[in-house]
Amino acid sequence: MNYRMIVYIMGQIFKVVGLFMLLPVLVGFIYGEDHVILSFGVPILILMLMGIITTIKKPKNNSVFSMEGFVSVAASWIGVSMIGALPFVISGEIPDYPSALFETVSGFTTTGATILSDIESMSRAALFWRSLTHWLGGMGILMFVLAIMSSNDARTMHMMRAECAGPKVGRLVSKSSFSARILYGIYIALTVSEMILLLCCGMPLYDAVIHACSSAGTGGFSMYGDSIGHYNSLAIEMVIAVFILLFGVNFNLYYYMVIRKFSLAYKNEEVRWYFGIIIAATGVITVNIMHLYSNFGQALRHAFFMTASTITSTGFATADTAQWPVFSQTLMLLLMFVGSCAGSTGGGMKVSRILIIIKSGIKELKYIINPRAVATVKMDGKPVEKGVVRGAASYLVLFIMLMCTSLLLISLDKYSIEESLSAVITCMNNIGFGVGRFGPAGGFGELSAFSKIVLCFDMLLGRLEIYPVILLFSIKKR
Amino acid sequence: MNYRMIVYIMGQIFKVVGLFMLLPVLVGFIYGEDHVILSFGVPILILMLMGIITTIKKPKNNSVFSMEGFVSVAASWIGVSMIGALPFVISGEIPDYPSALFETVSGFTTTGATILSDIESMSRAALFWRSLTHWLGGMGILMFVLAIMSSNDARTMHMMRAECAGPKVGRLVSKSSFSARILYGIYIALTVSEMILLLCCGMPLYDAVIHACSSAGTGGFSMYGDSIGHYNSLAIEMVIAVFILLFGVNFNLYYYMVIRKFSLAYKNEEVRWYFGIIIAATGVITVNIMHLYSNFGQALRHAFFMTASTITSTGFATADTAQWPVFSQTLMLLLMFVGSCAGSTGGGMKVSRILIIIKSGIKELKYIINPRAVATVKMDGKPVEKGVVRGAASYLVLFIMLMCTSLLLISLDKYSIEESLSAVITCMNNIGFGVGRFGPAGGFGELSAFSKIVLCFDMLLGRLEIYPVILLFSIKKR
Repeated sequence: MNYRMIVYIMGQIFKVVGLFMLLPVLVGFIYGEDHVILSFGVPILILMLMGIITTIKKPKNNSVFSMEGFVSVAASWIGVSMIGALPFVISGEIPDYPSALFETVSGFTTTGATILSDIESMSRAALFWRSLTHWLGGMGILMFVLAIMSSNDARTMHMMRAECAGPKVGRLVSKSSFSARILYGIYIALTVSEMILLLCCGMPLYDAVIHACSSAGTGGFSMYGDSIGHYNSLAIEMVIAVFILLFGVNFNLYYYMVIRKFSLAYKNEEVRWYFGIIIAATGVITVNIMHLYSNFGQALRHAFFMTASTITSTGFATADTAQWPVFSQTLMLLLMFVGSCAGSTGGGMKVSRILIIIKSGIKELKYIINPRAVATVKMDGKPVEKGVVRGAASYLVLFIMLMCTSLLLISLDKYSIEESLSAVITCMNNIGFGVGRFGPAGGFGELSAFSKIVLCFDMLLGRLEIYPVILLFSIKKR
Repeated sequence: MNYRMIVYIMGQIFKVVGLFMLLPVLVGFIYGEDHVILSFGVPILILMLMGIITTIKKPKNNSVFSMEGFVSVAASWIGVSMIGALPFVISGEIPDYPSALFETVSGFTTTGATILSDIESMSRAALFWRSLTHWLGGMGILMFVLAIMSSNDARTMHMMRAECAGPKVGRLVSKSSFSARILYGIYIALTVSEMILLLCCGMPLYDAVIHACSSAGTGGFSMYGDSIGHYNSLAIEMVIAVFILLFGVNFNLYYYMVIRKFSLAYKNEEVRWYFGIIIAATGVITVNIMHLYSNFGQALRHAFFMTASTITSTGFATADTAQWPVFSQTLMLLLMFVGSCAGSTGGGMKVSRILIIIKSGIKELKYIINPRAVATVKMDGKPVEKGVVRGAASYLVLFIMLMCTSLLLISLDKYSIEESLSAVITCMNNIGFGVGRFGPAGGFGELSAFSKIVLCFDMLLGRLEIYPVILLFSIKKR
């Protein structure tokens, strides 16, 4: 393995995150929060120093394969989370380190689970940094590095795979740095559009920035304890719901639309299922919760927003779903697992992976009925490679095994099986709220330090789709 | 498909079950329970009539393949459950039919979940019939038919596959009727041995018969509300715990031992893992629950019994596990999923299937690290066929999908997500008790008729390992 190159990539990432940390300092200055000089200054210094030292000269052997990609991504995500947690600790806003780490990992992985019980008391700089971690983590930190690096090495595609979600990543154009630039371009355009629309809906500028960043990463950090419900504005809710749904679509599709290849976008089976599931779930939940609201419109409004927030694993809330019938809650639990499209900023198992798994299950049934029948799994009308099918099934298996292990570890804490399971599910799927005690109102602050660390790993496993994190910790074994 | 042959096989099964139903009539006469003439007479008449009519002449085309095997097994299990529920209804002991059906399906599938709240008030004949369904369902009804039929058609092996649990069924000897006879011989020998040992421990004859039958099928129906805890006897608990563990071992192993091929038995990887898991789980739970009991011995006793009862999916209880720490409860929940060995009477996913799935997950990881590495999944030192690996993964996927669907349907009832999930898990894994409201004390009687029917399907899906039931209901679509 090319360790020099791994360190080099990590250094690049550290520098980028260090520069991004200047933004909350700026926000702090604007709102007269002097503590930012120290609380953000220290981590910025650490990041920049480490980044500069490790990237002074580029390694001669700059070859990177999947393994290098996976390991450097996992290591840098853990690194930036550990340093990114420092502002909360230094400013004293989250004095204990495990809690600050949980909050930061929850940010970068776009989970949105919070340990804070009084969000409104946080400084503006800290709240902005929370949402910025969502924005950075949504599209990926390495992806940003690739976008600004002028690498013309086609092999860096291996690295993109490590950070990009879903069963496979399609190569948009031959150069990965160009791909990354296109993806970030679309990402920025969508984020800015949402911000402008939120301003048009009457949201103050600061709020609009915070919520646009959190939506873009499908993260879910808000600046109010009652989340989007705080504004009680239909317009704001609809803008956010529509945009988080858009951020849950495979970004390749936007690229196809930009280059006017609409047929390629239309052929995508995953996105049709994605919107199909959303419409069906919204309909069913609306009928199921109708008796709780004054009229059909109100029920539809909440059903649509919560379905969008759940399937994209965002975790914004407008309603207290604990009051909804168990059927709707169960349906939402299943939506959490399904997740959004591959290649989007959303979490969960991804619609395409579920589709592939279901299709291969049907294939297996056909095989049992008639062993001589030749059945293939198809997606978008084309046969899926065997490796991809096997990969999707293995992913599910690994996911379940890690979920069971985490559940066992969390069960050592003081919670019931249901609560522990809910915490693990919400973290591994990067959603941000579970059922019961870990509902939309939070409650993660009460967890033991050990449980917080376990859940940090779960969030990273979920965001990076397991393999990078496992490979990082199995290096020595080889 | 050979429909004539399917009907013929069903007829044979109906006749056999009809004859077995004479046993509870005999029990009723011994204890002077006159109602048995009517309550068991009617279903016996129905079964015998249907059986005789459909088996008057053997179909000329007697070829049976997997499909015929799967469909006839699924159809006859549903048939005998529907008719086997009648004695409870006619005698008025369980007046409403869905409840009686639930109890009978729970019996045949060796689940052991009961809708009864006052077991002690049941007639002796009815309690005996409950346990007899466990005994019949444990090794399989079709298997019994094969054992007594003098078929010399090697192709009936296809039918054994449909009823036998686990990823694959090894063919013991070339003739399936001979295989079935050997398996039933071992089954009867073990059941009688347990009965004699229970008598030696001071259990009355009737109780010994009931509990030996329920243990043999790893079912869990007892004749007391407090299950095995009723006797408060260490000797009885140890006999039952050891025997349910033995019934959870692949029966092929006993055959190897009978024919003195010990090396073949020793090579079996699954059984070593099975006992390894039991020892490890017992140890961990003992330490975890120690503070609840007066001494180490008491904790070990309950930990061992409940581990054995859980991993074999029996569902006998000596302790109220709801009082145990959440960690132990979580561990037991995971043991329920693991289940016992393939080719045994126990339920769950089966140890070998879990092993194959984990090994293929590790293989996938190795492949990601080095795509050129050739890795194969091995069991018992030999490479596993690709079809078996794919089958195990598909099974898990189908299992999860059906579990989610059932959960959604049960969530329409009045229970919390945790309770609904617990009911579905315990039924699909054929265990017999869940957590919370559906704990060892029962509570299934309160479910709605719709939920009971859904759970009946879940129990059948679990016992017959999904494919037969699905195929039965997809015939028309072909």
